Amino acid sequence: MRIVVLAGGIGGARFLRGLMSAAPDADITVIGNTGDDIHLFGLKVCPDLDTVMYTLGGGIHEEQGWGRAEETFTVKEELAAYGVGPEWFGLGDRDFATHIVRTQMMGAGYPLSAVTEALCARWQPGVRLLPMTDDRVETHVLIDTADINGSAGGDGEGRKAIHFQEYWVRLRASVPAHAVVPVGADQAKPAPGVLEAIADADVVLFPPSNPVVSVGTILAVPGVREAIADAGVPVVGLSPIVGDAPVRGMADKVLAAVGVESTAAAVAKHYGSGLLDGWLVDTVDAGAVEEVEAAGIRCRAIPLMMTDLKATAAMAAEALALAEEVRG
Amino acid sequence: MRIVVLAGGIGGARFLRGLMSAAPDADITVIGNTGDDIHLFGLKVCPDLDTVMYTLGGGIHEEQGWGRAEETFTVKEELAAYGVGPEWFGLGDRDFATHIVRTQMMGAGYPLSAVTEALCARWQPGVRLLPMTDDRVETHVLIDTADINGSAGGDGEGRKAIHFQEYWVRLRASVPAHAVVPVGADQAKPAPGVLEAIADADVVLFPPSNPVVSVGTILAVPGVREAIADAGVPVVGLSPIVGDAPVRGMADKVLAAVGVESTAAAVAKHYGSGLLDGWLVDTVDAGAVEEVEAAGIRCRAIPLMMTDLKATAAMAAEALALAEEVRG
Repeated sequence: MRIVVLAGGIGGARFLRGLMSAAPDADITVIGNTGDDIHLFGLKVCPDLDTVMYTLGGGIHEEQGWGRAEETFTVKEELAAYGVGPEWFGLGDRDFATHIVRTQMMGAGYPLSAVTEALCARWQPGVRLLPMTDDRVETHVLIDTADINGSAGGDGEGRKAIHFQEYWVRLRASVPAHAVVPVGADQAKPAPGVLEAIADADVVLFPPSNPVVSVGTILAVPGVREAIADAGVPVVGLSPIVGDAPVRGMADKVLAAVGVESTAAAVAKHYGSGLLDGWLVDTVDAGAVEEVEAAGIRCRAIPLMMTDLKATAAMAAEALALAEEVRG
Repeated sequence: MRIVVLAGGIGGARFLRGLMSAAPDADITVIGNTGDDIHLFGLKVCPDLDTVMYTLGGGIHEEQGWGRAEETFTVKEELAAYGVGPEWFGLGDRDFATHIVRTQMMGAGYPLSAVTEALCARWQPGVRLLPMTDDRVETHVLIDTADINGSAGGDGEGRKAIHFQEYWVRLRASVPAHAVVPVGADQAKPAPGVLEAIADADVVLFPPSNPVVSVGTILAVPGVREAIADAGVPVVGLSPIVGDAPVRGMADKVLAAVGVESTAAAVAKHYGSGLLDGWLVDTVDAGAVEEVEAAGIRCRAIPLMMTDLKATAAMAAEALALAEEVRG
């Protein structure tokens, strides 16, 4: 069975572990979000790709969910001693090596997809990991300047766009987001293999990743949404919202920016029946099943908390079962 | 008193400590060799400049003479895990931060001289440290390929040029050098401030640095040798050869490549009386004084081993005294 998964960072990576456990013989292609990529200290950093790679390759910091296990921070401390920031992004020494290799290869002319393949030669994640695009896309968030510097904002003049990482990591999504813009996405081309993997897939899954800045960004690359809709195979997602709050992270902040309620049903309808065939909500959201099905999307309520590998594998198995059901 | 010092790495840096101790009120400008600069892992590494900066700034690994104190090697180990080398160059985590800052600034368009000044803002070396040039110069060494791969070389066909660092660090100068070429030097311009510092100097000193790949490379930048010769101030050097062997390092290997004997007198005559006014040899080489003076260079025999700061300061004081003597 060929499975395509559109993945963000932590949630996507943990779901993939469950999926690989539930379907050990499946041929899995992961299309990774690169909208949260950022240049730091002159190095190209791809947080979501690396989280998937480290998680599936056994190098992840398990409790934290991102970054490397047994990490040290000597380089970062030295950079701070030079007065060079930002200090709010937690790059460890082991992680730095990944970004140094990536930056060196890109400087030599290799596209991100080739670099990702080279990095995965070490990590052996057990899936084929593709960046959504080799082109540069950066998700920016529009905020009120008054919210971050205390001065009076007003009528649009007082708004500024900041990099998603600055919004998410530095500000911890603590101020309202007025818009989320994947800058460059409209000009981006899917990376080699992305459209082919979708066309060849038996099922497409949306893990409980952020529907705006993770899955949404991947779908913003021209051709990806259409390829999924046209593939003629079941497309099943898992709600990242449980009980009207994000399972983790701060997805509600960016959902508000695109005018979507933080409910399991609202996210399903945001994807829409033109894209989504099946949707899993948590048992606490069983009341949403009817609303989702009324929107033309097959829906089931099951436990959706990825508390351990067994629970996550059960979620993945339910997603595959729902896919078979909608295949009919 | 304004002193200009042409410095390589370890020997130059240690001499500078002695000079600062002997002449605490002097205004010292160091013109640093950049011929041993190398790009590693996509980063710009300047070993000699950094050795001077770390030594005078209190960050040097004292026993080793290069690199940072209390260094760790996590990044390097991770790079090796990716199969990315070279492994023979010892870049530590603290040191990596310096190269990351430098590379980022150069990528933003700053010349090496401005970057060096920015790095020195942290280290406060107590001297003005200038790279000899902002242009790229790389010292290459011509060797027989048969010497490194065991195959038969022959008549020039079997020779190759390798980066000085590969010759010095990887091969440890264990094979004959047929030529030493500062690639790019002929097109290089002295960095801002270099010619001005020489013109304004009261004395110019050559520390016991390598006369070929350190001081010689600086002199190979068009205009530098002429500026020193034309400055009309005493130029005094200290022999890096004591008792017919280099004090440290493998200077004899590269001296042979330029047809110069590994003796204190031969090095003085290699610089020549057109450049050098005074020369200090070690007491074990007292027999060379006559030969050097016969070549038109004032010469004294004093203890030249930089065993500690006191001994090094005494050497620097003798160099300054000899400068006053030749000033007449």
